[in-house]
Amino acid sequence: MKLLEERILRDGKVFPGEVLKVGGFLNHLIDDSLLEEIGKEIYALFKDDNVTKIMTIEASGIAIACYAARHFHAPVLFAKKSKTANISSDCYTASVKSYTHGNVNTVFVEKEYLCKGDRILIIDDFLAHGEALKGLISLVEQAGADLVGAAIAIEKGFQGGGDSLRASGVKVCSLAIVESMADGKVTFRKQEI
Amino acid sequence: MKLLEERILRDGKVFPGEVLKVGGFLNHLIDDSLLEEIGKEIYALFKDDNVTKIMTIEASGIAIACYAARHFHAPVLFAKKSKTANISSDCYTASVKSYTHGNVNTVFVEKEYLCKGDRILIIDDFLAHGEALKGLISLVEQAGADLVGAAIAIEKGFQGGGDSLRASGVKVCSLAIVESMADGKVTFRKQEI
Repeated sequence: MKLLEERILRDGKVFPGEVLKVGGFLNHLIDDSLLEEIGKEIYALFKDDNVTKIMTIEASGIAIACYAARHFHAPVLFAKKSKTANISSDCYTASVKSYTHGNVNTVFVEKEYLCKGDRILIIDDFLAHGEALKGLISLVEQAGADLVGAAIAIEKGFQGGGDSLRASGVKVCSLAIVESMADGKVTFRKQEI
Repeated sequence: MKLLEERILRDGKVFPGEVLKVGGFLNHLIDDSLLEEIGKEIYALFKDDNVTKIMTIEASGIAIACYAARHFHAPVLFAKKSKTANISSDCYTASVKSYTHGNVNTVFVEKEYLCKGDRILIIDDFLAHGEALKGLISLVEQAGADLVGAAIAIEKGFQGGGDSLRASGVKVCSLAIVESMADGKVTFRKQEI
């Protein structure tokens, strides 16, 4: 997606440790007009897949999921990372290793919100090693729901998670795939979208 | 807001410890069509206040903030609860006690995203004792930005946070104000909206 790639080149910042910072428009301060376009693009990619529910993981995936949900007229279920007093004990859970946070989270959704018969589109801001996505897919499988695919804003292609999931048959569409950030210069994989 | 009150009565669940569970439509599974209406209502309440930026706190506030942002054509800044490798050290911070989680979080926003001259509307899903809201207001004040007010989906009126902030001069608009949950029965404060 040209608009997102251009924005990454303009406002993204590369830091040591293969960190791409996009907090100025995607996952801390959220640019409303960019997200509108991202939501439309995700809809264009999955509009024929009979999506009945969008799933994401707190916190950075929620905004993108909501901007896409408007077009699908589908509810958004976000997997949580910490239990609170108002959470049922009847949950599907998965362990997710976070390279950015340097820890392992147990993520969960309440069973009553994820059901057999649901056709799930997973949406997230980043896909790197694929740990979060694999965790969400596990939750979908535990529920016996159908996975339609995954829509990602930015994939770090060189970290392999996306291609590994594609090879296993998952429809993974990333709006921008970063192939390299060597010497602080971001280059993208050529794509049709 | 009639639609939200009706939904709380229909699908909300009251648990011991004054817990009102609305995970089926507001803050775990998010009902797209309800959020559309909530976003419109928040716009109606603050459309004349020249809002330039919407601020919320992860994770449950993000969805509501995004559905409102579309109408204001304003970016959404969400305060974070944990530092990651891609966060600058140059942040405004505030301590927020969470009654639901039973802990104290340091919340923060990066200084470059919250500036003098910004006219901030704070949006959140719940207002109870007002701790999160006071934390966000503190961030706004530290930045020298202007606080337009706060739009809340559900206020627990009997816990006093909202009225205390109103008494201090903050424009706090809650779409549903729960006055009592005694014996598991939810009653609302009468309002014009």
